[in-house]
Amino acid sequence: MRFRLLTEYDGTAYSGWQIQNGQITIQGEIEKALARVYGTPVRIIAAGRTDTGVHARAQVAHFDYASPIDGHKLMVALNGILNRDIRVSAIESVSADFHARYSAKLREYRYYISRVQTVFLRDYAWYLSYPLDLKRMNKAANKIIGHHDFKGFCRSQSEVENHFCTIRKARWLIDDNLSVFVIQADRFLHGMVRALVGTFVDIGRSKWDIDKINEIITSRDRSVAGRAAPAKGLILEKVYY
Amino acid sequence: MRFRLLTEYDGTAYSGWQIQNGQITIQGEIEKALARVYGTPVRIIAAGRTDTGVHARAQVAHFDYASPIDGHKLMVALNGILNRDIRVSAIESVSADFHARYSAKLREYRYYISRVQTVFLRDYAWYLSYPLDLKRMNKAANKIIGHHDFKGFCRSQSEVENHFCTIRKARWLIDDNLSVFVIQADRFLHGMVRALVGTFVDIGRSKWDIDKINEIITSRDRSVAGRAAPAKGLILEKVYY
Repeated sequence: MRFRLLTEYDGTAYSGWQIQNGQITIQGEIEKALARVYGTPVRIIAAGRTDTGVHARAQVAHFDYASPIDGHKLMVALNGILNRDIRVSAIESVSADFHARYSAKLREYRYYISRVQTVFLRDYAWYLSYPLDLKRMNKAANKIIGHHDFKGFCRSQSEVENHFCTIRKARWLIDDNLSVFVIQADRFLHGMVRALVGTFVDIGRSKWDIDKINEIITSRDRSVAGRAAPAKGLILEKVYY
Repeated sequence: MRFRLLTEYDGTAYSGWQIQNGQITIQGEIEKALARVYGTPVRIIAAGRTDTGVHARAQVAHFDYASPIDGHKLMVALNGILNRDIRVSAIESVSADFHARYSAKLREYRYYISRVQTVFLRDYAWYLSYPLDLKRMNKAANKIIGHHDFKGFCRSQSEVENHFCTIRKARWLIDDNLSVFVIQADRFLHGMVRALVGTFVDIGRSKWDIDKINEIITSRDRSVAGRAAPAKGLILEKVYY
């Protein structure tokens, strides 16, 4: 039987989602908690593997288990074991063909930039002292909407062969002292949102022209794009199925 | 010479503002950092001593030092020594008769209640699953405005003799999924805001009548008021001189 698990986490203390030897990861912590409840290893698969320091408001994962599960009871048990910076928000049974990663149609990430330096956002936003021209940044953001090859925004060690992504939404918003970048796409390459944000920021402070976006896309060369924005400002907001 | 220091802190990891033997406190950390810069002990005095787990957006303190100080340079030096959850925002010279505590005319605290359980507010808001009637709570809040004896809202171990405070503002606001209580007064007694919030919440969920406020004020008995709200939702927002 297959189950869908919804989880929210503050990624600050973790080496990302994916299990790695000798590292404390979100997947590792949840699997450890599941193993403690069931006394047997349970493997979970997520919609998207977030990097070190990246957060999630609603990460989706699935796992298989031999017998029926009381989702609410299991959720309470897991939350009793997990640290306070990882919460399971829901567990429900799904059909056997549901796959957290492959069934996902759209993913939404958000990136937060703060114009004030405050201890309360030290792990949740990139503090920038200089002003950003959000109109310019939105003109640049419009250029990535649609189906494009994003190899120029993909971390170079990445081993995928196809770098095409379809961007449905890419928009900078203002919320008090925060600038928020909202991006929705069918898939994201490794390091892609942070490379895009770094590039938009360089356009927003007029270091680069708006056309730089086209240049990077055409180049297919990561070294042409801007410096990656820090992980702490990034959050996996939602996964659509 | 006298200097005014503005500081912001996340109180989660600290046993409040005031220095205590064997405890890690905000005052203790800042004084330790000042002693490291100057090689001599420097005593600082704050506008208000926040409790364990209580935060501050803009706590004000003063200290004396024999020679002139480059405020910006000292601020950068202190922030280089202090943990990331304490930041010094400004240091400037003030006249010798300025006193962070006694010169303060008005203090503003805020209390945050969250209607959704989220890891991102785990240290910054009180999560309540039940609905609150903010209209009732604001009717109750109106009753404390003015000059009253707040002994009934003061932690019983407290040793002050005069329990009169003048409340200038007491208002519940809604901001998305947060209910925010804003209170301004000339002074606050020990545990007063948290006792008030606990009482307003009991009125907001109709456990008590709005008139309970008058009953507590008249009683001058802390045991008549509601349970204190948890420290983590409370923040010293501003001090007015």
